[in-house]
Amino acid sequence: MSEPATSEENEMEARLAYLDEALESGRMRRLKPMLHALHPAEIALLLESVPRAKREVVWSLVPEEDHGETLLHVNDEVRSELIEAMDHSVLLAATEGMPIDDLADFIEDLPDQVTREVLRSMDVQNRERLEAVMSYPSDSAGGLMNNDTITVRPDVTLDVVGRYLRQRGTLPEDTNTLFVVSRYGRYLGMLTLAKLVTLDPERDVSEVMDTDLEALTVDMPAAQVAKRFQDLDLISAPVVDPDGRLVGRITIDDVVDVIRDEAEHSIMTMAGLDEEEDVFAPIARSARRRAVWLGANLFTAFLAAQVVGLFEATLSQVVALAVLMPIVASMGGIGGSQTLTLMIRGLSLGQIGFSNARTLLVKELAVAVINGLLWGAVVGVIAEVWFGNAVLGLIIAVALVINQIGAAVAGVGIPLAMKKMNIDPALAGSVVLTTITDVIGFSAFLGLGTLFLLD
Amino acid sequence: MSEPATSEENEMEARLAYLDEALESGRMRRLKPMLHALHPAEIALLLESVPRAKREVVWSLVPEEDHGETLLHVNDEVRSELIEAMDHSVLLAATEGMPIDDLADFIEDLPDQVTREVLRSMDVQNRERLEAVMSYPSDSAGGLMNNDTITVRPDVTLDVVGRYLRQRGTLPEDTNTLFVVSRYGRYLGMLTLAKLVTLDPERDVSEVMDTDLEALTVDMPAAQVAKRFQDLDLISAPVVDPDGRLVGRITIDDVVDVIRDEAEHSIMTMAGLDEEEDVFAPIARSARRRAVWLGANLFTAFLAAQVVGLFEATLSQVVALAVLMPIVASMGGIGGSQTLTLMIRGLSLGQIGFSNARTLLVKELAVAVINGLLWGAVVGVIAEVWFGNAVLGLIIAVALVINQIGAAVAGVGIPLAMKKMNIDPALAGSVVLTTITDVIGFSAFLGLGTLFLLD
Repeated sequence: MSEPATSEENEMEARLAYLDEALESGRMRRLKPMLHALHPAEIALLLESVPRAKREVVWSLVPEEDHGETLLHVNDEVRSELIEAMDHSVLLAATEGMPIDDLADFIEDLPDQVTREVLRSMDVQNRERLEAVMSYPSDSAGGLMNNDTITVRPDVTLDVVGRYLRQRGTLPEDTNTLFVVSRYGRYLGMLTLAKLVTLDPERDVSEVMDTDLEALTVDMPAAQVAKRFQDLDLISAPVVDPDGRLVGRITIDDVVDVIRDEAEHSIMTMAGLDEEEDVFAPIARSARRRAVWLGANLFTAFLAAQVVGLFEATLSQVVALAVLMPIVASMGGIGGSQTLTLMIRGLSLGQIGFSNARTLLVKELAVAVINGLLWGAVVGVIAEVWFGNAVLGLIIAVALVINQIGAAVAGVGIPLAMKKMNIDPALAGSVVLTTITDVIGFSAFLGLGTLFLLD
Repeated sequence: MSEPATSEENEMEARLAYLDEALESGRMRRLKPMLHALHPAEIALLLESVPRAKREVVWSLVPEEDHGETLLHVNDEVRSELIEAMDHSVLLAATEGMPIDDLADFIEDLPDQVTREVLRSMDVQNRERLEAVMSYPSDSAGGLMNNDTITVRPDVTLDVVGRYLRQRGTLPEDTNTLFVVSRYGRYLGMLTLAKLVTLDPERDVSEVMDTDLEALTVDMPAAQVAKRFQDLDLISAPVVDPDGRLVGRITIDDVVDVIRDEAEHSIMTMAGLDEEEDVFAPIARSARRRAVWLGANLFTAFLAAQVVGLFEATLSQVVALAVLMPIVASMGGIGGSQTLTLMIRGLSLGQIGFSNARTLLVKELAVAVINGLLWGAVVGVIAEVWFGNAVLGLIIAVALVINQIGAAVAGVGIPLAMKKMNIDPALAGSVVLTTITDVIGFSAFLGLGTLFLLD
């Protein structure tokens, strides 16, 4: 998301070009070595970059052992498209070896028949684990967690723990910590592998375990889990049920996805888009989605036009007002967007709340007045020279100041009002804001024009 | 960044309100218990939420042992403000126990005299480590890495490694992996603690080490490091110099910060803001920064006004054109922003390159035509009814279609052109886009009006 072209970007560009050439020339076999050399996440990105019509061809060249992981990495729309075209047996094979938390996400997109087969092919323990994870919403700690934890008792020595692990032979992926639980399964603390390998083997687990990290509750929203991981620099954390019994663990790689998705969600939502949308979605589907956003905007644009319509008589006499009108609207929109963006980020970080919004409003108002006066003066002078009318120059300057002030109030007020109404400020904020700045700008500018410029 | 008010949000809101009340009533001592109970990341957020004038008072109540970590968590602007007001001895104390990678970031903000004292107070080994990290740009693998790695030789048994670790007694924070290096310090592979505790102690390190993860080079850009961690679901990775010698390790908690900062950078840049900006920055500083952005926009707004100016004669005869003008401009801007946002995200993910942009353009054009026709028809009918003029309705419908098409071309073309010129599309994209959609919209609408509506 930054400007310098890294070598990685060029590499991706080169891959796209190579792919494009192979697709054009029809020599698809040449893609095989490339696809074999790539990691599933890179294959996924490539699939998202291929126009829909050719995706299936590329997919047929992806090595079967990468199917599962690649499907986990593509966005929701591309995933369902690929799954739809796959044989049931191939789909079943793709689920093999998938970690429980990933499988729980994946299985929701499978045809019912395949889901049944997947469940039938699992052993009892894994099936129970899967069903446990699936019983929680996917955007909660329960949905993010993996339940293949290794637990130990507090009253054994590190030596006993060591012998137990050696007997097991392997640990679940990314296990850096063992969890200490009571006889009834209640979470008591964590024992890092680092402690296990450095401390005296004769010591008891209860003496050396870490107890300062509070466990996450299974119903904690994913956004809050992500915040906790970031604030405390966690690598993994235990998850407990309402009775304090250990039910699983969350590792940071799952949380990274949440953090990235949240950030993408904000950027896309502010433009009325969905972060899971396929870039090459079918035209009809894209058009339908965009239509809603354009329609909402049209409604607000008509409000602004109606305000202009009130001043028809003035406009027909002083055409200069019509010429300069877009400048007032544009400056108000830009100024307001800056305050709005600051608010949307501040609210999402928790930096800004109802109690300190007043102080922020005072600051934003001061900034608006300063910039309104500065650019109002510039625009005023230009307008005066352009149309040879000093009163017109003065009027547009005053309108600009008024509009900047209105933009600051709207920029602070709209997101707070939306938060109160439980509406995502990123979604509707900019449409409502520009409506308000347009209405204020046009009213002020054309209103003053009517008062002072008519013969 | 999502809508539902979580309990954590309410908690933050309650803290802000409590703080506000204490600041208002002057009973500051009441804050002490709260600040003692909070984690440094939470204190940092609270400090960012406090108006500048009162920040120093709150800071004086923060427990000294949390000073270092809290300073690491606040944004750049607040950090330099707090550092400026701190005694040198307190600053020196705050650096104690900081991990090398954090210290390397922090030290850049310290007064020279304190930096010298910090360096003097360190032992030779740590000073050399710090200087090594500081010699790399902070947005590279070298700047992100920590160089307190634990290395082992390939030709020893796991038992020997185990005894060595027990002798050490502790491991650096977040150590889950030991790095295997040759006699000359060349990186050979990784030995996870999980393997160390599960496998037969008589086996050699070389037999069981993981060699499939390619080491990161010390000059790799931070954005690429972040992508690698996400693609491969890494928890930690080795960093090597150009000769393949191990120089450090990067753990995922440092990468999470990069991912979050990148996402914030995009959102803030699109509004002409800086992600490190203090919400309560001094008014003069904020006003100066915003002035630049408003000025750039003003320049482009004048271009649009100039286009309108070409049609003064027409506007004075058909005032309805002036009334409906904002609708055409607004719809073009909204449609274009959607394509632009899709492109900015696609480029940053590597989903879109020059080779598949053509396909995307075709799709966006089709979407533009469909929505142009749909909303053009709606606007056309409304305009006809409003002003009782069928030709006017037809004209605005055609102008809307033309503007949607222009918006699609601009939305795809501008970010590609900017990428070619090494300009961040998020920074200048929307200003340039709305200029183009305004110019196209006004030209088409007023031009058609001149042709068909004048007497």
